[in-house]
Amino acid sequence: LCPAGLLPLCSRVWGSGARERAGLPPAQRRAFSNNKMLVELDEGSGVATVKFKSPPVNSLSLDFLTELSIGLEKLENNRGCRAVIFTSAVPKIFSAGLDVTEMCGKSTEHYAEFWRVVQNIWLRLYGSNMVTVAAINASPLETPSKLPAGGCLLALSCDYRIMADNPKFVIGLNESQLGIVAPFWFKDTFVNVVGHRIAERSLQLGSLHSAPEALQLGIVDELVPEEKLQDKAAAVVAQWLALPDHARQITKSMMRKSVLDRLLTHQEEDVQNFVGFISKESIQKSLRMYMEMLKKRKG
Amino acid sequence: LCPAGLLPLCSRVWGSGARERAGLPPAQRRAFSNNKMLVELDEGSGVATVKFKSPPVNSLSLDFLTELSIGLEKLENNRGCRAVIFTSAVPKIFSAGLDVTEMCGKSTEHYAEFWRVVQNIWLRLYGSNMVTVAAINASPLETPSKLPAGGCLLALSCDYRIMADNPKFVIGLNESQLGIVAPFWFKDTFVNVVGHRIAERSLQLGSLHSAPEALQLGIVDELVPEEKLQDKAAAVVAQWLALPDHARQITKSMMRKSVLDRLLTHQEEDVQNFVGFISKESIQKSLRMYMEMLKKRKG
Amino acid sequence: LCPAGLLPLCSRVWGSGARERAGLPPAQRRAFSNNKMLVELDEGSGVATVKFKSPPVNSLSLDFLTELSIGLEKLENNRGCRAVIFTSAVPKIFSAGLDVTEMCGKSTEHYAEFWRVVQNIWLRLYGSNMVTVAAINASPLETPSKLPAGGCLLALSCDYRIMADNPKFVIGLNESQLGIVAPFWFKDTFVNVVGHRIAERSLQLGSLHSAPEALQLGIVDELVPEEKLQDKAAAVVAQWLALPDHARQITKSMMRKSVLDRLLTHQEEDVQNFVGFISKESIQKSLRMYMEMLKKRKG
Repeated sequence: LCPAGLLPLCSRVWGSGARERAGLPPAQRRAFSNNKMLVELDEGSGVATVKFKSPPVNSLSLDFLTELSIGLEKLENNRGCRAVIFTSAVPKIFSAGLDVTEMCGKSTEHYAEFWRVVQNIWLRLYGSNMVTVAAINASPLETPSKLPAGGCLLALSCDYRIMADNPKFVIGLNESQLGIVAPFWFKDTFVNVVGHRIAERSLQLGSLHSAPEALQLGIVDELVPEEKLQDKAAAVVAQWLALPDHARQITKSMMRKSVLDRLLTHQEEDVQNFVGFISKESIQKSLRMYMEMLKKRKG
Repeated sequence: LCPAGLLPLCSRVWGSGARERAGLPPAQRRAFSNNKMLVELDEGSGVATVKFKSPPVNSLSLDFLTELSIGLEKLENNRGCRAVIFTSAVPKIFSAGLDVTEMCGKSTEHYAEFWRVVQNIWLRLYGSNMVTVAAINASPLETPSKLPAGGCLLALSCDYRIMADNPKFVIGLNESQLGIVAPFWFKDTFVNVVGHRIAERSLQLGSLHSAPEALQLGIVDELVPEEKLQDKAAAVVAQWLALPDHARQITKSMMRKSVLDRLLTHQEEDVQNFVGFISKESIQKSLRMYMEMLKKRKG
Repeated sequence: LCPAGLLPLCSRVWGSGARERAGLPPAQRRAFSNNKMLVELDEGSGVATVKFKSPPVNSLSLDFLTELSIGLEKLENNRGCRAVIFTSAVPKIFSAGLDVTEMCGKSTEHYAEFWRVVQNIWLRLYGSNMVTVAAINASPLETPSKLPAGGCLLALSCDYRIMADNPKFVIGLNESQLGIVAPFWFKDTFVNVVGHRIAERSLQLGSLHSAPEALQLGIVDELVPEEKLQDKAAAVVAQWLALPDHARQITKSMMRKSVLDRLLTHQEEDVQNFVGFISKESIQKSLRMYMEMLKKRKG
């Protein structure tokens, strides 16, 4: 299920092996922390929590995404880890999405590297053998230079989405508002969650939906008061882990395989499409204007 | 996106070029009118309104459909036109649908010509680069010799559907009530809008759904009081046009391409299927009985 | 539409031909009964009722399924039969589903025979030219050695599902709770009814949904008080039979053909997959544990 060999070997070690090298027995709760996120694995329950902590808005920069990709690979390969909860350690924001500065004024090589990491994270997450739950602290309406779409995609790729019940919080794939286009595998993931009509309208309009609307459309599965978000996520994970892993994993793979395979067979083509599109002067101009607009609103 | 070369060159000029030939500057609001519909293009906003005016019930005859097909082609090729609103100038009726008299007692050549125009309109409309909104004045329950299915298909092919909030108004693909079968691309369009279960049941039963039911099933996106229909349509179009055209158009194409391609690769086969089916004596008899029944009810 | 030649000729005669051999004219209401079910055909209306009567819980054993498969074939080939209502003659239970004892501790030949009959019933039912309605007396929460999934699949394969309005009654595809996996054609059928998101979650969790929840998710189309279940089913069938058979049948075939074809082209492969999976010692152990657990709960 989980596509292998997608990530090049990476020399940045992500907190691993320290205890083993020191000859220590495994701790019951192990925490790895790096620059952009905190990962805690409860070895008793097999549940990991990935807390995004890249203030101010957990923007999905190349550094952030590289760290997340390596983190997901490590958790996936850890037999003691059966589930992951994604949440934010930054108050009031899950993730502001893909960092637009990574797509603006950089080299084509940079764009390609950036896009490959985005692809790899989606392939790992959508095809994960682990139970995956998004505990969405939500996104504020306006955040400069960030694309909420990326944070929404992370959530859509999980098995279950819980969102803080606050009508000011929004979620959505808003690419078209920036003059860019969600790739086909964002679209496939979205259609699998909300169906064709809603995906078509929401993607064309680049809509950011309030929490109650997101629930009604099926973008999230449940709303809970913000202070109960973590407890609820833990309860949901416990319910899913009560099932035999093997049957659940095969079932999940059966549901998602055709959509995963579509990207796997068009992966390099998709990179070239992205690089070609984003390198266009008209698109670069549109992204610069978007960033200017947000700076002005903020200032 | 918009399939080219589908319509044979047509010598009937559809109100075009008159001002140019007279040396006049383009008007801010240009109205073209022909026999069956009125087309107004607001050149300031780039929004065209197509008003069906073929009393008593805007039946989709060969003449009507030919005029509509040419009109759509002209609007699509007009760079000043970014959106179209479809509505009716006939009180209380959007369209009674395909004209059954075009399918009954005619030659196979006539059936083929009729069906090709139906195909071409759908290909243009479902694949349009323009924002397309149906402002449905609705259909009464019983109208002789007409098939509401055609009017419903027009609406389903738009980006957004607004219907007058009147429980007496109905909408649906009612082919099976006449003993005929919706072609696969009507079905594909319907499934994209309402999903498989609802499409399967509604198509098998040939259901005509009341406005509230149509909203609940997702056949229409919104109900508004009849007197606010046009204002609401204008507001919706304005919302869609706030997005950059290019990103919106690519997104729409991505969502609809596979369904459009299915007809494009089976187009002539689909004409032959239609002609063969409709020419059967049993089907002709069924259509005659349907028309007789409606005449009696009316009389 | 209805796949031919799927059932080997069977020497077990299913109550047929008795009146003919006795030289009697056909009765207006003919009842065939065998060990596991009662079939009544009202020759006036063309509506058959199949009543499961295999106490205590209508478990879908090989004998039960073989009888059902032959029964469906007979009804399908009977031109006087236009619709079938499936219901239960056993109080409070529609069917407890596939009989786990047929999948546990038997030979690979037995598993293969069992699975082929399951396939054949689904192919007949999902592809039936008849109007098919499930009148679900519902299933209690716990029944030893049975898999509610099979009963749910029968219902999902019908054109319409009516369930007794009792929150204690449950329905679902609960394979994963037993450590086994619903085959792809169970999944395809489920996705066609409830869409991708709900199918994915429900199949992974092996959920058994209460009647109100089943209605909300679209697993059933309608809830009615238990005492009105049969009348409602008759009324629904009458509504569907008011449509011309031919158009309705072609429409149904158009909606279901791609999913039927998927099994038809992978049928033997699917048998081998099932046999290989179910024969694994780990799966056998899991099934034995499940049966032990249920026995203890009951005892």
